[in-house]
Amino acid sequence: MSSEPEFGKLVIFGAGLIGGSFALALKAAGQVDEVVGFGRGLATLTQALNLGIIDRIGSNPGQEMIGADLALIATPVGQMPEILARIAPYLGAETVVTDGGSTKSDVVAAVREHFGERARQFVPAHPIAGAENSGASAARADLYRNKKVVLTPLPENPVLNVARVRSAWEWCGGEVFELTPETHDRIFAAVSHLPHLLAFALVHELALREDSPLYFKFAASGFRDFTRIAASHPEMWRDICLANREALLGELERYQARLGELHGALSRADGEMLQKVFDEARVARREWGAGDGRQ
Amino acid sequence: MSSEPEFGKLVIFGAGLIGGSFALALKAAGQVDEVVGFGRGLATLTQALNLGIIDRIGSNPGQEMIGADLALIATPVGQMPEILARIAPYLGAETVVTDGGSTKSDVVAAVREHFGERARQFVPAHPIAGAENSGASAARADLYRNKKVVLTPLPENPVLNVARVRSAWEWCGGEVFELTPETHDRIFAAVSHLPHLLAFALVHELALREDSPLYFKFAASGFRDFTRIAASHPEMWRDICLANREALLGELERYQARLGELHGALSRADGEMLQKVFDEARVARREWGAGDGRQ
Repeated sequence: MSSEPEFGKLVIFGAGLIGGSFALALKAAGQVDEVVGFGRGLATLTQALNLGIIDRIGSNPGQEMIGADLALIATPVGQMPEILARIAPYLGAETVVTDGGSTKSDVVAAVREHFGERARQFVPAHPIAGAENSGASAARADLYRNKKVVLTPLPENPVLNVARVRSAWEWCGGEVFELTPETHDRIFAAVSHLPHLLAFALVHELALREDSPLYFKFAASGFRDFTRIAASHPEMWRDICLANREALLGELERYQARLGELHGALSRADGEMLQKVFDEARVARREWGAGDGRQ
Repeated sequence: MSSEPEFGKLVIFGAGLIGGSFALALKAAGQVDEVVGFGRGLATLTQALNLGIIDRIGSNPGQEMIGADLALIATPVGQMPEILARIAPYLGAETVVTDGGSTKSDVVAAVREHFGERARQFVPAHPIAGAENSGASAARADLYRNKKVVLTPLPENPVLNVARVRSAWEWCGGEVFELTPETHDRIFAAVSHLPHLLAFALVHELALREDSPLYFKFAASGFRDFTRIAASHPEMWRDICLANREALLGELERYQARLGELHGALSRADGEMLQKVFDEARVARREWGAGDGRQ
């Protein structure tokens, strides 16, 4: 390990699970000198300070950007445009900025709009390390260890800026990949955003019933796993759904068509079709589970 | 613990996860003298014999029922009618029979049809201990420990027969409840059968795409939990879906309507409605997770 940290001053916007874990990981790796935190809630920031996630609570985002080597925007995606607009005029020539948002086309559009020429200093990222817990108390130095991190670099990013942001995520323990923002959003609409919507919908449907306690009483491990993501952060997921609305609508429609087919098979008591679908799904799920999806 | 086992001879039909774990648990509790196993596959039975799950592989089901104190039918529900028909004429006066099926109205109907007067000796059961693994090698003596077991007694069951079957499941470590078959099937259509169908459908949809490896590559922990049940036994789940078809169709239609509403909210970019649904779902999921759903 080098004796000099790669980044001197890190500014994080949002000191919750994503931002807090990023700061803790870079601190644990000895790669930052100082972490300054911003956020909407003073309670979260104070907690982050007490937990050693940040060294100072910032008061003026523009001022803090002067002299910052690295900044991470780790707020719900709906709050990003405002932050981008506030910090854009104050970016140092060497500062690189990244984010932890779960959608990327919208972030890229906001960066282009608010950073203008300085979009070259912003390298969008999505660390694939969701958890249904949130807040500073959920942050952990090892959250990103062996987790995939997708960068969606802009054509205007100099190679050096991509390399520096890649390096920061690698210090956090992440395995870094690059995709275009469009491919990223298409993939995550299918494998993340739709499943969240489906899990929220199932729990909501049951929760609204008059006799819902009877259902929940007998729900067991299959239900628990299936609905774990329905305990996720509502505001964050609202923003993700809105930000990736078109791709998500496309995935939802494909899924609705698929359910329509299964409804038909069930109505006809077509056991052959049901078994074929279940068989093929099981094979695919097991192959994935034995490789990338292993715990 | 009494020195005399409560049951002398146990006959199990199906020596896989459910039947094998029942036998192992009663053996571990010292509550059976001998376990005789039947099944479709000689390989599974041989494995069960080698693992000490059964003491003998049976050859004539009728003959083995003579002198049996307890029998468990733990096959996919589609195979139950044939087994019931074969053993009915040979039931001893003191024999009680139970099952491990995930649906109950169909089992009750088959019992009435094939057992006739002897339906009084059959006490239907559903141990809530699903796992995506199956087969004799997955069987464990502690599978049912602290798991719920639902009995759906028939009006014609003498109290003593219900008590004996309850006792067997309690020796396995289960927490026993009683419901009517109809209430059971309505609840499990919602909290178990529908989630399985939804998980199978999602994995199947992705598996059929030409570029499916790209999707699976970036699928992460949320997807893993959501789709864990899509690795379940296809034939078993085909039978469950067919056996509980009407209740499941009802639940599927309610869910489709719910997805239609979410599709509308997303189309209109109605963030307020999305957040309301997500909020209410999260509260319900967290409350359940803190109580019955805790791991």
